[in-house]
Amino acid sequence: MYMDNQRRLRILAISGSLRRASSNSALVEAATRLAPDDIDIAIYRELAELPPFNPDLDGSDGSAPAPVAAFRASLETSAAILISSPEYAHGVPGVLKNALDWVVGSGELIDKPIALVNASARATLAWASLAETLTTMSARVIREASSTIPLDGRAWSPDDILADATIAAALRSAIHALAGEARGTA
Amino acid sequence: MYMDNQRRLRILAISGSLRRASSNSALVEAATRLAPDDIDIAIYRELAELPPFNPDLDGSDGSAPAPVAAFRASLETSAAILISSPEYAHGVPGVLKNALDWVVGSGELIDKPIALVNASARATLAWASLAETLTTMSARVIREASSTIPLDGRAWSPDDILADATIAAALRSAIHALAGEARGTA
Repeated sequence: MYMDNQRRLRILAISGSLRRASSNSALVEAATRLAPDDIDIAIYRELAELPPFNPDLDGSDGSAPAPVAAFRASLETSAAILISSPEYAHGVPGVLKNALDWVVGSGELIDKPIALVNASARATLAWASLAETLTTMSARVIREASSTIPLDGRAWSPDDILADATIAAALRSAIHALAGEARGTA
Repeated sequence: MYMDNQRRLRILAISGSLRRASSNSALVEAATRLAPDDIDIAIYRELAELPPFNPDLDGSDGSAPAPVAAFRASLETSAAILISSPEYAHGVPGVLKNALDWVVGSGELIDKPIALVNASARATLAWASLAETLTTMSARVIREASSTIPLDGRAWSPDDILADATIAAALRSAIHALAGEARGTA
């Protein structure tokens, strides 16, 4: 479990922004390229496919809309989660919170190690709100993996991130800390 | 402006829950029936039709997806807004925050008086988070119109709410305070 068929640790990465030029999306993309050989970081790209959370659509027989079932399976089979999210009006992007709303009851995040990377030094309220929600869901927000990686001020591409030694080191360090937790070696 | 053709003050009411048996939806439904003759409270029912917020879809020429344009117009032509929302995992429901994300940039909530009714005495974190977001968007959260109307413990229908003298009085009082602010007579 949590390993792919090359026995690499599986981490799922989620960007909280749907914007094409998002620095948060660039950060998760860079993470996939920075990961060492024994870690496979896959990006969850279907945030916009999840329907608006409605408990009436979540069958007591375990049935759920197809994108929701797929999202839950992706979380379930990943050893850890990396989230990088912008802040909108001092709050969590609705689209990201909507995804979390779908797994409050089903429980795929229980005990799951999570790196909550903050791509803006100014975005402290959404980060705190996300950490509160994830902790309430019994996920484990790993502080050592949840640094601020300040990408303020301009649009960053994955290449920009990989080319900046300080930024790349901070991201590598977050991945390392998260994987350590997931393996129980932290 | 802000009046319908019978010269009634227009208030838009939004429930943060899509659940059919939602107490928050019952509360906004009850509000429409409690409103005095000179106030028209309309319910916004298209929360689930709004696409996931993506700034790339919001054209610099003012074009936007049709449900977004309709939502903005509803806010724009209303004198005040009444919001009743549940709390999910100590946070704002994603579907409600997603709606707000669409109007951060376009500005329909600037200076708009808002009643932020809290239908649960336990749901303090989502309330605070919503108030913070709305204030950041330059809306005016009217404290006198933002009481806790405790509907914990069981499902409430609009009829239940109207039949409970204490609950109905609290809701009537919130509507009164909100309308007073909107008319500038508070």
